[in-house]
Formats: sequence, C-alpha cells, structure tokens
Amino acid sequence: MKSINIIKIGGNIIDDDEQLSVFLKDFASIDGYKILIHGGGKLATDLAKKLNIPQKMVEGRRITDAQTLEITTMVYAGLINKKIVAKLQSLGCNASGLSGADGNIIKTQKRPVKEIDYGFVGDVSENSVDAQQFSKLLEMGVTPVICSITHDGNGTLLNTNADTMAGEIAKALSRIYDTSLSYCFEKNGVLKDVEDENSIIPVLHKDQYLELKEKKIIFEGMIPKMDNAFSALAYGVKEVNICHAKNIAHIQKNGLKTTLKN
Amino acid sequence: MKSINIIKIGGNIIDDDEQLSVFLKDFASIDGYKILIHGGGKLATDLAKKLNIPQKMVEGRRITDAQTLEITTMVYAGLINKKIVAKLQSLGCNASGLSGADGNIIKTQKRPVKEIDYGFVGDVSENSVDAQQFSKLLEMGVTPVICSITHDGNGTLLNTNADTMAGEIAKALSRIYDTSLSYCFEKNGVLKDVEDENSIIPVLHKDQYLELKEKKIIFEGMIPKMDNAFSALAYGVKEVNICHAKNIAHIQKNGLKTTLKN
Repeated sequence: MKSINIIKIGGNIIDDDEQLSVFLKDFASIDGYKILIHGGGKLATDLAKKLNIPQKMVEGRRITDAQTLEITTMVYAGLINKKIVAKLQSLGCNASGLSGADGNIIKTQKRPVKEIDYGFVGDVSENSVDAQQFSKLLEMGVTPVICSITHDGNGTLLNTNADTMAGEIAKALSRIYDTSLSYCFEKNGVLKDVEDENSIIPVLHKDQYLELKEKKIIFEGMIPKMDNAFSALAYGVKEVNICHAKNIAHIQKNGLKTTLKN
Repeated sequence: MKSINIIKIGGNIIDDDEQLSVFLKDFASIDGYKILIHGGGKLATDLAKKLNIPQKMVEGRRITDAQTLEITTMVYAGLINKKIVAKLQSLGCNASGLSGADGNIIKTQKRPVKEIDYGFVGDVSENSVDAQQFSKLLEMGVTPVICSITHDGNGTLLNTNADTMAGEIAKALSRIYDTSLSYCFEKNGVLKDVEDENSIIPVLHKDQYLELKEKKIIFEGMIPKMDNAFSALAYGVKEVNICHAKNIAHIQKNGLKTTLKN
C-alpha cells in the first residue's frame, strides 16, 4: 500500500503571509502523495465587513446566508486557494485547487434546520468523498489543494467545515492508502497546560482525551478537531497528528507533535 | 483522431442568470470531449465599485493592480467558476474548474511595460498551454471549465484575456484532437449590418474579413476575437465558429453561426 499525507491548515496560518510562505515551502518538500486542506481565516470576515454584510456566528460557526456564501466562495475557492496553488507551483509542487464541486469530489448535504438555521452549510458524511477521483489525480502527479466549499449535486454550493472535510477525506482514502492525517494549528500539539508550549502530550490515547475533556483541559475549538481525529483513527486512518504548522516538515520523524491513539 | 469542442462564453451571458442557465444546459448536452472558457463580465467591476477600488480601462482592457488582481481572482476563479461547475454537475456533466495555475495547465508571462503598464496581466503564447495535462483530465471523464486567471510559474497570478486563452488552448489541443473552437457572444454571428441580426455571414474567409475590417464593418471588440480565431485556424484548428450562446446546442449542425475559413 502506498502512503499519503493529508494536512489541514487553519486560518491563523493563512492570515499571515510569512507563516504561510514557510509552511508551503515545507509542505512542497514532503515526498510522496499528499493533500492540503485549508479553511478561510479572517479574510472572509474582513471582506464581509467591507461590503457591509453582517456576519452571524453561533458557537464559532458562521451562519451562511446567500450573500455570505458568495463571499466564502470568492475568498476560499478564489483568493486563498489560487494564491496557495500558484505558490506551490513556484516551489515545484504540481498543485491543483479544488472545491468539492470540481470533479464532484466531495458532495455534501445542506444542514437540516433544527433550532438554528445555518443556511448554506454542508454536512460531510462518509459517502461524501470520491476516493477514486482523488486517487486518479494523485496518480497523475497532481497534489490536490482543497478549499472548504462543497456542493449538494443539485447546483448549490455549500460552506463546509475544513476540519471535518480533512477527517472524511482521510477516512475515504484510508481504503486505498496508508493514510496519515495532520491538523496544523498555532500550538505545538495538545498541551497539558495551554499557557505552556513545552507541556506537549506526545501520545494521547482516547480514554486520556475523554478524561482531559471532562476536566476541561481540552476545550472549545479543540473538541470538534479531536473528535474528527479520533473518528478518523477508528475508521482506519493509520496516524493522526496535531502539530504547529512550522513543524510540518518533520512530522514523520521526531518533530514536536501530539500523536493520537485509539 | 478524437474530436473536441472548445467553447468560450463572454460576460453578457455570465451576467444573466437565465441565459447562463439555458447555455449550461445546452453545453452539458454536447457529446464527447469539451472545454468551457469563461471571462468575468460586470461582476468584477461591480465588486470593485462596492469596495471603492477605482478601475482603469485602456481600450477596453482592465489595468490590473494588486487589489484588482485580488478582485478578479475572487470573482473569476471563485464565484463564477464554482457557480458554473456546480450547475454543470447538477446537469450530469463532470466539470472541474481550473485557473492556469491549477495543474500548471496555462503558464503566461506578465505583460512587459511599454507605453502602458497593464499591471498583473498575463500574455498567453503558443507554449503556455500544457496540452497533455488537458488530455489527461479529458480522458478521466472530466470537462475542464477554465477561468481567465493564469500564473507566471513564480508564484504570481495574472489576469488574462479569455478570448486569447480560448484560441491558444484550441491551438495546443489541435495537435491531439480534431478541434472545433466556438466564440459565443450576444450576436448571431458576424453580421454584415450590426443592427440586423438576420444579416449573418454564414462563411467568412480571411481576405473577406480583412476587407470588412478595412471598411470598419467589423470593428472594436470583434477585432481581437477574429484575429485569435484566424490565428487558430492557421495553426491547425479544424473549425472556428462565431455564434450566439443560445445557438450552441446546434453548432455542429445547421445552427445560426459564422464559420471562419482561411
């Protein structure tokens, strides 16, 4: 079985040109099959502000009305995605940017309206990802760069959580490849003490995670990330790491990271 | 030799949801290999206006400063491209949207500064198009949807003329396929009298074109389109048509069109 590295980067790296540039250099240097998944950062919020389109957030999630969908499509699939692809090309990495609609690689369902109407938001499920289409691109020598916009198959684009997309892409590809999934963020890994960058937990087992969640040592935005990560492991993804974007080049060796274990 | 239809649509179709919808349905129904190339229409100008970024046009061409490049990237590669791709997917056409940077399919050179500095504008040449990469996508069953953004290979995106891109893509693919190139616009074809939609010239030879240009019966925006078209024919493109977007479904049969001949 060939192996693949699936790497998700968050908004804090995208928002910082210098950090992004260093990260992309490191990403380009990783050998073998790889996929990059990116969210949007503050750029979408900034553009909405300039256009006087009020943004509503519920528990850190963006309510995506029709105008906000246009903004996220422009920023994620247009500006950020093409900027990353052009930069990777200049580094000798044959990147190709895709939304879920392109080649129908990720088809999602509009989130059902319950207490909250999230608007044009897509929920990724196990059957959302076309692993064969990814595989064909990879075998062509292309590195997919995936933005967090998908579609419903009926002509509607949907804003989608990039962490969840990364988890589901990793699950689908784990049937074809030895799959390693890395979530890059602004900390060195999962920390015992969020204030102390040296307090990394090198290996985190699921029962230990549940304990830390209970004690609120792991909290807020980390929880969905970790839940996606453990779900991917349970499904057959070989390795899941949480690390700082600056340490991605050494992720396979002894770099600073937290490796999750079921 | 397999055959391919390369079709370019202009801004007037993109700006009109209903016309675009009808066109995409017709496009999806065309059998065999096909490629769609689109420009941007008024949406980029509208967004620039809303963001108070002044737009400078010289002889109908947009001066692309850094902020305008961001706008065109957002609108062409993001909003319009993904809207078209999602719609085509819903019609059973496995479309995939690409800028020139994606898969390095079209690499251009920043236009040299002479009397006018056009800014971040790319000039497409004969060697710009990676025909093999197009061919691999087509053989995967994918229909490329190309927006008018390219890159220079050094990490910089470039705003690029969609008519010229269509011509150069057709030239490059004519080495592999029997290539038919169609420019769709708001008229039924090349007209003897611009006010009379029934005055279509069904077949236009190059010497006749030069004569009509001389007499200013063909003028303004039509001239670069026609020059690209005749250049493509001279290079080996089998057929070049000029037609209204609404007649594309019948372009291979007896639809209303002007067919160019060298």
